[in-house]
Amino acid sequence: MKTKIKRGALTHVDAKGHVRMVDVTAKAETVREATAVGEIWMSGEAVRAIRDGSVKKGDPLQTARLAGIMAAKHTSGLIPLCHPLAVTAVDVALTARSWGYAISATVRTTGPTGVEMEALTAVSVAALTVYDMLKAIDRTMEIGAIRVTAKSGGSKTPVRG
Amino acid sequence: MKTKIKRGALTHVDAKGHVRMVDVTAKAETVREATAVGEIWMSGEAVRAIRDGSVKKGDPLQTARLAGIMAAKHTSGLIPLCHPLAVTAVDVALTARSWGYAISATVRTTGPTGVEMEALTAVSVAALTVYDMLKAIDRTMEIGAIRVTAKSGGSKTPVRG
Amino acid sequence: MKTKIKRGALTHVDAKGHVRMVDVTAKAETVREATAVGEIWMSGEAVRAIRDGSVKKGDPLQTARLAGIMAAKHTSGLIPLCHPLAVTAVDVALTARSWGYAISATVRTTGPTGVEMEALTAVSVAALTVYDMLKAIDRTMEIGAIRVTAKSGGSKTPVRG
Amino acid sequence: MKTKIKRGALTHVDAKGHVRMVDVTAKAETVREATAVGEIWMSGEAVRAIRDGSVKKGDPLQTARLAGIMAAKHTSGLIPLCHPLAVTAVDVALTARSWGYAISATVRTTGPTGVEMEALTAVSVAALTVYDMLKAIDRTMEIGAIRVTAKSGGSKTPVRG
Amino acid sequence: MKTKIKRGALTHVDAKGHVRMVDVTAKAETVREATAVGEIWMSGEAVRAIRDGSVKKGDPLQTARLAGIMAAKHTSGLIPLCHPLAVTAVDVALTARSWGYAISATVRTTGPTGVEMEALTAVSVAALTVYDMLKAIDRTMEIGAIRVTAKSGGSKTPVRG
Amino acid sequence: MKTKIKRGALTHVDAKGHVRMVDVTAKAETVREATAVGEIWMSGEAVRAIRDGSVKKGDPLQTARLAGIMAAKHTSGLIPLCHPLAVTAVDVALTARSWGYAISATVRTTGPTGVEMEALTAVSVAALTVYDMLKAIDRTMEIGAIRVTAKSGGSKTPVRG
Repeated sequence: MKTKIKRGALTHVDAKGHVRMVDVTAKAETVREATAVGEIWMSGEAVRAIRDGSVKKGDPLQTARLAGIMAAKHTSGLIPLCHPLAVTAVDVALTARSWGYAISATVRTTGPTGVEMEALTAVSVAALTVYDMLKAIDRTMEIGAIRVTAKSGGSKTPVRG
Repeated sequence: MKTKIKRGALTHVDAKGHVRMVDVTAKAETVREATAVGEIWMSGEAVRAIRDGSVKKGDPLQTARLAGIMAAKHTSGLIPLCHPLAVTAVDVALTARSWGYAISATVRTTGPTGVEMEALTAVSVAALTVYDMLKAIDRTMEIGAIRVTAKSGGSKTPVRG
Repeated sequence: MKTKIKRGALTHVDAKGHVRMVDVTAKAETVREATAVGEIWMSGEAVRAIRDGSVKKGDPLQTARLAGIMAAKHTSGLIPLCHPLAVTAVDVALTARSWGYAISATVRTTGPTGVEMEALTAVSVAALTVYDMLKAIDRTMEIGAIRVTAKSGGSKTPVRG
Repeated sequence: MKTKIKRGALTHVDAKGHVRMVDVTAKAETVREATAVGEIWMSGEAVRAIRDGSVKKGDPLQTARLAGIMAAKHTSGLIPLCHPLAVTAVDVALTARSWGYAISATVRTTGPTGVEMEALTAVSVAALTVYDMLKAIDRTMEIGAIRVTAKSGGSKTPVRG
Repeated sequence: MKTKIKRGALTHVDAKGHVRMVDVTAKAETVREATAVGEIWMSGEAVRAIRDGSVKKGDPLQTARLAGIMAAKHTSGLIPLCHPLAVTAVDVALTARSWGYAISATVRTTGPTGVEMEALTAVSVAALTVYDMLKAIDRTMEIGAIRVTAKSGGSKTPVRG
Repeated sequence: MKTKIKRGALTHVDAKGHVRMVDVTAKAETVREATAVGEIWMSGEAVRAIRDGSVKKGDPLQTARLAGIMAAKHTSGLIPLCHPLAVTAVDVALTARSWGYAISATVRTTGPTGVEMEALTAVSVAALTVYDMLKAIDRTMEIGAIRVTAKSGGSKTPVRG
């Protein structure tokens, strides 16, 4: 016999935990753009290895750009509640600093939700890729300062620079 | 006619840029473990929303743990030159701080290469997942301090804590 | 010399077997929604382990909801002739029963084809996830009663409740 | 200043919910095999369409076998806490019944964990694939009776037939 | 002759080498179609094995069609700078020749970019699948003549037949 | 009532079509290596665009190498009956020719099956990537001469050079 357990008993726990993909069906398809940035700090030796082109696995900058672009396309497969959308442009840039590299990613789409997560994912995976290629030289690298610096389209709440 | 261009001419450029997946065929299959950590800083309002269980998308901590675990399994699909390996244990923990959450991930495998990249990827994707679930409340969150804190098995070069 | 074999010889076999992704290019992009349900039957011991929170792998309900949502997004990667589409909402619910859990998933999109397969896939993967987390306790679980209970948008042929 | 919140406060909730991939690092690599079965019930019209080879999308049986095999390989990407492993054999069979099809899948590996989830996933995705190909003809199909019928290697607890 | 470019000068090359996903945000969503073709040459023994249905792994033609269709859906996950888009129709055909099989794939979408890459990917993966299934019989197979034969929608530059 | 249809009726069709992943459970784990090659023919204008570094999407050679390496890792996800295995080395090389590029890929693993499919997939996807990046300049490119040139480990049947 299948006795139904009283539902109320679980409501509170359920309400707190119950994950859902927020409904964006009714939101307008507009052009949306977001830019995220991040940094990877490394030793002088690691910096020189990139500049010299002596990294054993190959050029970390090109690899990081490509990894970031591919990750942007795969964002909704990584972030559980992120809506799938077809990005229409992705640009990942790495700028040489004395302490390592500053990374930025700009993503665009025409869709019902924003692309901050795609930009943040591109930056994160680009940084992880640089880490992977340099870890034989420097095991004390650190990745940080990952944040959204610009967002337009849809809601326009300002974000910090 | 297919005239072969002199190869030497391209060697230098080629040598610098030519990416490759480093050969680990001959390396021993040993138990390997790595721990990585990271942090996500957020507003008091965002912190309270997690503690209250009032985040619209559901519980960010459980979702982040799962996203981190799944990302660890998918690491070699994200990081271009990372060797595929079958992880045998993944644990992702988020610890409440006044300023947000400290995240750590420990990964194990029996294989020919280490699992730092898996641990770093788990931490990064867990942090991105928290960001995704809180971004409606706080657009100024920042992810950082992502680094490897422990590594054992295979080569044992110490890493910073 | 490349002699062409008479095509007619294979036509029948070909006609029968030849799979194709049905052309939906000309179909209207409308809001479409589908709900699917299913059940997982388990021992009293397994039911109690979930209620007690004593499942070794963690909370099966949260994990199942997330797995179902992620699977809904990945449906066209699993079902060979299923059209890719960007889901705009997914909700997966598990309701406690004395015999286990009733699972339901509702999926929405704006697109040229329906989302029954996405809803069915979400239910199936959520059930498989519960199974995975409880299998150390109960090896006789059964998953069933998976069916579509509601579908709207596009063609409106009624489905059984 | 980063004041640490007292951890104990969250321990209980944490302990209950905290998902983890169970550590199998120390488990022996042995040959493991599992068989799962399931059923898809459909209308006589749908059954005849398969037998006649008149299904618009092509042959559902071949498609279902392939989808099941591919899904078995992708299991750890679908089931969040499932360990990745390299399957060494997958066989998916569909047997004609008056009411539809009986589906079974047998999976083998040499590894530290069993392959029940791979077998169950193969059966489930094969059934979903049949559903997808017949849904234009029959919207009242039902998938069920999905369970493990045999498991060997590693722990040998009997499962029901 | 390839004179080595002065490295400072490589900045320019670098700027040029910097990969990016070309921005198609502003391009019109129109119906687009592309057809690609290719060939796989094999021994008479391999050809007969397909015709006889004696290939150990099963029917290569059905498997190749399905693999081609699934690959078309996954194109932007394989080709780094390819834009993601939702294909609305895919048809993969294999025509028996005395020397093997001629393969063609036609893909359609409604979107801002063309689908040549999807059609070429479908042909390539269908050919690789035939190769995989016959390689126990013939290790000297060759895949070639992969090219686009028709493209419509968006820009209409003619392509060679 | 569930009347079982006589199985024999379908045996022939079944026997012919029934795909399966061939059982390699009992095969020895040995070091295995395979090399595959291919070519992409293009116009002089396209060749010059690569040499000049004036391709709008960025450097096609680096991108192709990375795409080939990543595809090698993903082979069993593309080729339905291909066994999953963890590659331990992948090297993709593109050599400039007057008519375009010669591509080769060498893959290694320690496992129970060979890696020809991984090498062929790497070559194919590298070629498709070059195509993607040059297609704005040349729509008459052709990909071909894809074949295995060396294979060692496991069975040692010679392949043609």
